[in-house]
This record gives sequence, C-alpha cells and structure tokens, in this order.
Amino acid sequence: MALRFEILARDGAARLGRLTTPHGVVETPAFMPVGTLGAVKGVGPHELEAAGARILLSNLYHLTLRPGIEAIEELGGLHRFVGWRGPMITDSGGYQVFSLSRLAEVDDGGVTFRSHLDGARLRFTPEGVVDRQRRLGVDLAMVLDECPPWPVEHGAAAASLERTLVWARRSREAAGEMPGGLFGIAQGSVFPDLRERAVEALAELDFDGLAIGGVSVGEPDAERRAVVERTAALLPDAKPRYLMGVGTPADLLHAVRHGIDLFDCVLPSRNARHGLLFTRRGTVRIKNAVHKRDPRPVDEGCDCPCCRHVSRAFLHHLVRSGEVTGKVLATLHNIRFYLDFMGQLREATASGTLTDVGVPSVAPTSD
Amino acid sequence: MALRFEILARDGAARLGRLTTPHGVVETPAFMPVGTLGAVKGVGPHELEAAGARILLSNLYHLTLRPGIEAIEELGGLHRFVGWRGPMITDSGGYQVFSLSRLAEVDDGGVTFRSHLDGARLRFTPEGVVDRQRRLGVDLAMVLDECPPWPVEHGAAAASLERTLVWARRSREAAGEMPGGLFGIAQGSVFPDLRERAVEALAELDFDGLAIGGVSVGEPDAERRAVVERTAALLPDAKPRYLMGVGTPADLLHAVRHGIDLFDCVLPSRNARHGLLFTRRGTVRIKNAVHKRDPRPVDEGCDCPCCRHVSRAFLHHLVRSGEVTGKVLATLHNIRFYLDFMGQLREATASGTLTDVGVPSVAPTSD
Repeated sequence: MALRFEILARDGAARLGRLTTPHGVVETPAFMPVGTLGAVKGVGPHELEAAGARILLSNLYHLTLRPGIEAIEELGGLHRFVGWRGPMITDSGGYQVFSLSRLAEVDDGGVTFRSHLDGARLRFTPEGVVDRQRRLGVDLAMVLDECPPWPVEHGAAAASLERTLVWARRSREAAGEMPGGLFGIAQGSVFPDLRERAVEALAELDFDGLAIGGVSVGEPDAERRAVVERTAALLPDAKPRYLMGVGTPADLLHAVRHGIDLFDCVLPSRNARHGLLFTRRGTVRIKNAVHKRDPRPVDEGCDCPCCRHVSRAFLHHLVRSGEVTGKVLATLHNIRFYLDFMGQLREATASGTLTDVGVPSVAPTSD
Repeated sequence: MALRFEILARDGAARLGRLTTPHGVVETPAFMPVGTLGAVKGVGPHELEAAGARILLSNLYHLTLRPGIEAIEELGGLHRFVGWRGPMITDSGGYQVFSLSRLAEVDDGGVTFRSHLDGARLRFTPEGVVDRQRRLGVDLAMVLDECPPWPVEHGAAAASLERTLVWARRSREAAGEMPGGLFGIAQGSVFPDLRERAVEALAELDFDGLAIGGVSVGEPDAERRAVVERTAALLPDAKPRYLMGVGTPADLLHAVRHGIDLFDCVLPSRNARHGLLFTRRGTVRIKNAVHKRDPRPVDEGCDCPCCRHVSRAFLHHLVRSGEVTGKVLATLHNIRFYLDFMGQLREATASGTLTDVGVPSVAPTSD
C-alpha cells in the first residue's frame, strides 16, 4: 500500500504530521470537507481548492447508488469523476447503518440496504466495500463497520463490535493491492473495555491508519470527549488517526490535543446552509435582525470570498430572501474557517503552543 | 451626468463601443448578468468577476421590498451592499408591471404594487424611481415605464405608451444630479407607428441612452425581431442602446447586427438551473441519460470552472441528484458562455467580420 505518514513535531499528545498519498501530501491535523455525492453542497472543486482544502471525503453508499461504481470506474476513477486532483477518502457505508437504520439490515456477512432512492436491494460486504473503493481509486479507504446508535446496551455494543472486528479482518485480507491505504475503524460505543478491545484487535491487523467511529451519534459532549481521550491514547503512535464525523471547533481542538490527525464533519457546510457562521469571535446567526445594517464582513480576520466581497448585511439579505447565493457564500466561509482553524492548530503544534489556542464561543451575546 | 459613450468601430449597423461609467468602463456590445436581489442565483461576486462580467443588473422593485432603499443607502450604496466593484444598473420596476400584473395597479401618476412578500402597499412614481436609483448610486438608472402584455390592442398600447412618455419626461426632469446616467425606455408593443412615436418623443428628452422595452413578453420570435430591427434603426446613433430582457444567443447576434449595445437576460442562469447548457456546438440537456458516462467537459472550447474541472458525467450526476453544486457549476458555465459570446461579437465587429459569426443550434440531435 502506498501511504506514508511522518510525524514532524509533537506538542503533548498532539502531532504535526505529513501524510503522503498517491494524489499528494496532506499536512495533519487536517479537516476533510464532506462531499457526500462528490461535491460539498454548493461548492465547485475549484472553490474548494481555493479555500485550501487538501483532501476531500465522499461516501461509498451514496456513490454506489448513484451513479454506480462501474460508471465512475469507466470514467477513470473517482478523482477524475468529481474533478478533484488531490487526495480523496471514502467512507464505507458503515455510518449509513446508523443514519439509514430503517433501510439497513445487518447480518454476520454484511449489510443489506434498501436504496433510499428506489428501494432497490444493495449488499455491502467487507470484501465488496474494499473492492469498490479500490475500483474508485481512493487514497484512503475505510473498512465496512457497524456504527451502533446511542444509547446502546453493553451487550449489544459488544456483539456489534465483535462482528465489526471480524469484518475488519476480512477487509484486511481482501485489501491486497490497494492504490492507497486502508483504515480500520474502532467501535465500542461509550464503553472503555470495548474501545480497548477494538483498538487491540485492529492494531494486530496492521492497517494504514485507524479511525474512531461511533461518535457524533447523539451522545453528550462529555461522553464523546471521554471516548476520544481514552481511545486516542490507545491508538498506535506511528499511524494516522482519524476521528469520524466530529465536530465543532472546540471538539477539533480537544481531539487534536489528544493526538487525532484527521477529521471530517458536515457541521461547517450544514450550519452554513442554515445561516450559522463560525468566526474568530464566535458564531454568527446571520438571519438575526441585528445584521441587517451591519457593513462588516462576517469575520474580519478572514479572506474567504464571502468576507472579502460582501457584508453581513448582504449575506443577511440573501439568506433571509432564500437566495442560494447566500448558502453558497456562507458555505465557502465556514469551510474556510475550518481549514484556517486546522492550519492554526498545525502551527501551534509545530511551535509547541497548542495550550494557548482558544476556540471562539458558540454564541456570543452580541449576535 | 457622468456617462461617456464612444463608438470605436462599426460593422454594418453594429457598433463596437466603450461606455465609461462612474464605476468603470464597459466594452459594448455587452451582456449584463441578472442579479435580481443583488447576486446572480448561486454565484458570488468573485465568481461573476472571474467569469468576465463587467456590469451587473439588479432590480429596483425587489430591492425596494427587501432590504429597502434606506438600508442600502445607509450601507454605502448598492455597490458596497452587493460587493460588486464594477458598474451596476437597476431596472425600474416597469417590467414588474407586466410580470406581477395581478399585484400592480397603474394610474397616470405611477404604479401601486402590493408586495408579493407581505401584501404591503408600495408606490412607484417616475420621480420616486429616479430618486431611489440616485440613492442606490447606480451607474445606469432606468425610467419607470409600463410594459404592456402581449398581445395587446393598438389602442391600449397607444394609451399606455403616452402615459410612459409622460413618465419619461417627468423622470428626465427629476433626474437633476445623478451619479451615473438615466436611460429612457421605448415601448409600443409590436406596432411600428407606436415604436416610432416612442423613439421620437424620447430622443427629444436627451437621455444618456435609450432602451427597447416591452419585448420578451411572450410574442413570437419574428415579431420581436421585427420590433428590434425597426426600433434600433430609429434610435439616436451616438447614445448606447439597450435591448431589455433578450435573449438567446441567436437573439443577441441578431440585435447586435442591428445596432444594440447592451443586453440583460435571465436565460443563461435560469436555463442552467434547469440543466440546459449553452455550448459552442449547441445546447446540452445535461439531465439526459446520454451524458451519464461522458467524460468530456460541457464545452471543450470553454475554460469556465465547470468545464475546467468536471465532466458532463459528473454534472449529470449532480443535477440528477438535485445537488445545488450542479446548479452552481451550470450557471457559471452559461454565464461564461454568454460573456464569451459577447466578446466574440465585439471582436467580429472590430474586424468587420460579424456576418461570419454563426450561433450554435438550440438542440443538436446528439444531445
């Protein structure tokens, strides 16, 4: 497999890394914007590149349904299909076991989905998922796993985890020649013994990296943070560590401090579409009347296209009017905010000043 | 008033011109993208600039409703509000007399709208419309006019025209110190005598430019073209000529050949949102199954972000999936197509080769 991961600096448990993939280098800690169907909603690949994104996440379940793996393969692979030159990662469909649970049936061999589009039957096995990602040509592939809901009983979580670990072994054996790397996913819900069991079993399989899955499924912040702290501490040091589906800027800072290298989350783009913007001074609800006559940019410290060109007043006007340009500009800003924030965390890790980094409050009184 | 218009070259009736406004120079013939609420739908000002747009059109009726003229004035004027550094033009609300006719009541003094948002009463008078555009600080302001429907009886069209001409005189008198220029609008539906009457009366008022209004309201192509040909021939030679709300590439070519300098139309952006793309080889309906595995860009001769980065297959996928990125990329392409096409018409006018310019067919069999 064709991944290389070097740790260039450390600050406590935090690591400044360089992940080399077939489609280029990713400096870590890194945020991977979510393009479920191949593009971040409202954002073309040129804008994503301009925002400073280095690696793009897409979703195997959704791509399998539409346009289908064969079509993408015939078009020269996922990168060419979506017009993204840098590294790409796909999630395996394991998260959809949770998010589309009423359409998913799990057995020991894999998952059977009924398509959310037309009800067609769709079989996901550990081997099939590896094979599809190989055909897509992704730089980082994820194993098929089962993401249990929260809350879940210890017994059910343990049984689910054992199945996920069997799948992980099958995935590893199926991997063979991959264009990029294959990551294992540690499940185990909020139970320390299960998380420990997960990491121990996965570490033996010598994946190219390990992920913490099964968080951001409704659990309280404190539970999630405890899982991250405990699990990150167990993960092999030399391999990249990916915290799936997390989170707020405060979550990212917390996880980086505990040694996480990779993140993906829909929060910046989804919040943007709802008019909630991240700034260096806290979150801004752009629909609020207080912004109607505010000539300032969303974030004075930001040079994204939104902050460079338009005022809070105009964004307020567009979003209140339901204009799609409002969603587009807000998404460009939030994505840029996340990418800039990760850059700040990398710099702080390099200079050993991570403890000085703060995060803006979530809802300052002025907005 | 602060407009200057120079004619640099001619090819038959066509003119290559340079229109100097307070916010910069526009080379004509020019296409003005439509940002009704201040932005082309899905396109930020930075993207519009990158596409080569030089002048942006917005709409006084819509801006009056939301966010209100006072708010924009307080924010430093329309340019600062929408984040557009180049010239701006606003339509007067006259077109909404047609398009929102069930909400508009016309009397000799002006138009009373009931807001399409909340039913609030909104009064538009010739003087008020001039005053509002002055306060917005637009480079090109349009007089209030009445845009009759099609078909309309000669008598009704004549009566409407006389009212529009009285309004034009009142507008001209109200203009006084404008930051930019004020354009008169020739109405008269499809009746040659009325169009002649309109131009004659308006020419006396010494506007900074004249527009042909009252087309693109449902009349057959041949009727519209006849109006354009006859009316354009009557317009004062030395002033810029603006054909409102037109049209297809073929319409633009036709009108340029007959001496029109300025255009606006929602066609490129609206069609894009519906998956209809303009290319140098004809229109492409991107939703059609034939594009599902087509690795080519939408238009091989185009270097817009859509054609540079993604294939027809990916755009098909996004548009079929209802992803807003599909609409955004398609809009960027169509706007760029229109702007490039106008550039081609300017070059051809400069070199006296306008008769050689063809337009792509509207629906080639291959798509």
